[in-house]
Amino acid sequence: MANAIITLTTDFGLRDPYVAEMKAVILSINPNATIVDITHEIEKFNIRMGAHILASAAPYFPLSTIHVAVIDPEVGTRRRPLLIESDNCCFLGPDNGVLVLAAKRLGIKHVYEVSNRDFMRSKISNTFHGRDIFAPAAAFLSKGVSPKKFGPEVDIDEIVTLSFAEVTRKGENMVGEVLHVDNFGNIITNFGERELKAAGKGFLNVSIGGIDLKLKLCKSYADGEAGKPLAILGSHDFLEIALNQDSAAEKFKVKIGDKVILRTYDKRHA
Amino acid sequence: MANAIITLTTDFGLRDPYVAEMKAVILSINPNATIVDITHEIEKFNIRMGAHILASAAPYFPLSTIHVAVIDPEVGTRRRPLLIESDNCCFLGPDNGVLVLAAKRLGIKHVYEVSNRDFMRSKISNTFHGRDIFAPAAAFLSKGVSPKKFGPEVDIDEIVTLSFAEVTRKGENMVGEVLHVDNFGNIITNFGERELKAAGKGFLNVSIGGIDLKLKLCKSYADGEAGKPLAILGSHDFLEIALNQDSAAEKFKVKIGDKVILRTYDKRHA
Amino acid sequence: MANAIITLTTDFGLRDPYVAEMKAVILSINPNATIVDITHEIEKFNIRMGAHILASAAPYFPLSTIHVAVIDPEVGTRRRPLLIESDNCCFLGPDNGVLVLAAKRLGIKHVYEVSNRDFMRSKISNTFHGRDIFAPAAAFLSKGVSPKKFGPEVDIDEIVTLSFAEVTRKGENMVGEVLHVDNFGNIITNFGERELKAAGKGFLNVSIGGIDLKLKLCKSYADGEAGKPLAILGSHDFLEIALNQDSAAEKFKVKIGDKVILRTYDKRHA
Repeated sequence: MANAIITLTTDFGLRDPYVAEMKAVILSINPNATIVDITHEIEKFNIRMGAHILASAAPYFPLSTIHVAVIDPEVGTRRRPLLIESDNCCFLGPDNGVLVLAAKRLGIKHVYEVSNRDFMRSKISNTFHGRDIFAPAAAFLSKGVSPKKFGPEVDIDEIVTLSFAEVTRKGENMVGEVLHVDNFGNIITNFGERELKAAGKGFLNVSIGGIDLKLKLCKSYADGEAGKPLAILGSHDFLEIALNQDSAAEKFKVKIGDKVILRTYDKRHA
Repeated sequence: MANAIITLTTDFGLRDPYVAEMKAVILSINPNATIVDITHEIEKFNIRMGAHILASAAPYFPLSTIHVAVIDPEVGTRRRPLLIESDNCCFLGPDNGVLVLAAKRLGIKHVYEVSNRDFMRSKISNTFHGRDIFAPAAAFLSKGVSPKKFGPEVDIDEIVTLSFAEVTRKGENMVGEVLHVDNFGNIITNFGERELKAAGKGFLNVSIGGIDLKLKLCKSYADGEAGKPLAILGSHDFLEIALNQDSAAEKFKVKIGDKVILRTYDKRHA
Repeated sequence: MANAIITLTTDFGLRDPYVAEMKAVILSINPNATIVDITHEIEKFNIRMGAHILASAAPYFPLSTIHVAVIDPEVGTRRRPLLIESDNCCFLGPDNGVLVLAAKRLGIKHVYEVSNRDFMRSKISNTFHGRDIFAPAAAFLSKGVSPKKFGPEVDIDEIVTLSFAEVTRKGENMVGEVLHVDNFGNIITNFGERELKAAGKGFLNVSIGGIDLKLKLCKSYADGEAGKPLAILGSHDFLEIALNQDSAAEKFKVKIGDKVILRTYDKRHA
């Protein structure tokens, strides 16, 4: 485990010393850890965005990776620090849902409350458990300490979950939501390949933010005509609404969590 | 020393090739160095902010870490490149005060002027000593070259220091300053635990930017009521003025260096 | 090759999971790779800016470094993925010119089309070849797989190049362009030491964006008088137009690609 990978996902930004302090604590305990930043640009306190980003990236990491996610508006209160053991990796973070989406995708085996002070910094601040609890826990895990040593097991049904909208069917409409708006302005929905097949070929009829769109289903962003939105199956197998070299999210004023309707008929020709 | 850690603190930002060039130079000399970014988002030329961030992060790093800080508006002039040897780590950077706060906290043993060209790039630009002087010096240090080989010793009293406001007492007031405004908008002052104890229990009376505030002393940010500023002992043991899930700095238009008064009595009930 | 360095240059930004997914794929194949970010802040789709940044940083990396550059607006179309073998390093990226400037500087030996699916992810998305093609190719290269195994050789004359303006001479004027505007607002031109010598001593007469400037040729930024633009030979041996502790690009509203004229006489005294 000497070469174990520890990933970090936070809303800390890169300007302050906080991320570096977590890395310093990790390397003080395990100098051989390989630390990979997933992102530190989660919107402040946006647990859902953190959960989505972590769930997107986690499946690509090697076995035994340890994922630390600290979007933690309730740090210092009674919310529990959790360690979730999956078949092939571990997750560390507050019990507020940020870990759950990723952990469910990779299979939850055990959940522990991190409470053993042997694996924390000797002095624990009330405002920075990322540095004082989660970073040392990750470092000790990466050195081979067994997950069950970190604290008592917690019932899976007792941890906080997030209700990510599942796609629902209403008559001839499938109703989903915007999972994420990426840096390119691509609108990533929670419609997958199954919904795409149900919605037809060649063109998709989508309603978003009250606007009805007829979208060409493209194989690449560059297939889109200038200024016309397109539909594409993205790199995580979700339907994206995009513009060729432009921001669809800006054009249609869409944000994370917005409702998206995918029709199985063309409203405009009904 | 093969696994030595080298940290980088600069105002270069992450868009240009400058940070990568420093890393390239380091890895060319010591392929086994572990490089950790503290931050590259120091405000351009803001030596005090760089000094504060470095001093905050440095104590968490393992023994023998080498810290490089390049906020260097006078690069290419006669200002000296310095190597400061502390008991447990080394600092490299320009003689403009950026290293001093961290070095003093960790204890200054020796100061050297970096002048030995054996440990620089063969061609030295006038505009980028981070790459041409400090990065190679850090890499050679990390390979075990003795600090005294880098150049002549400099008297500690001769190096440039910064006057970080010490807390002063004026009657029943303690006068301090804003050390840092973090990414969350938390206002970090230079009042420590001692001043907090002197200021009373339960509520603190603070004046900042001409505004008098009565702040509940909280154990966590989440203890704060919506929209009401709170006081909290932050993760570096300084008094912070914060808002629960909002930016106190924005609300009160506060910036680094602003004066803060902590009263030992309640002005509004005087 | 166990300790091989892989660099990444993209326009992905650091907020999304894309960069981390590339690193995850690399480390899954070669856990010993050292990954260095050159930048992920290339302006979206700005191939020329990516080419310039890569060409600036690449020469400082050690022998055998593998450079991956993904500014790829045509991902998923018939544009080819390329592997360029130089004397001392390798480049991976789309056939759109992003690699060419760096590769030419370091000497092109062979060019291959990356087509061997043994060295790709088993499932290849249409929208993210960085993760599915270039990252695994880099990782396999770093483990010692020979470049020629990745696909058929391509004629050097058949790959897409960018016409970076060469400096041209018109009478007593030398005409060049703005290669880059850095984070400090320094305007980096494509005039080198040769053009500087031809232009005179002490002061340079430059025209940029229709404005005629008489610039003091300085040895350091700090030599510049407050508010007055200066000329300096920058850290990559190009003429820069700069302001001491201020942004020249903002003051003169200059952007990448703008024309710059360097005169061998003083227009204002003509």
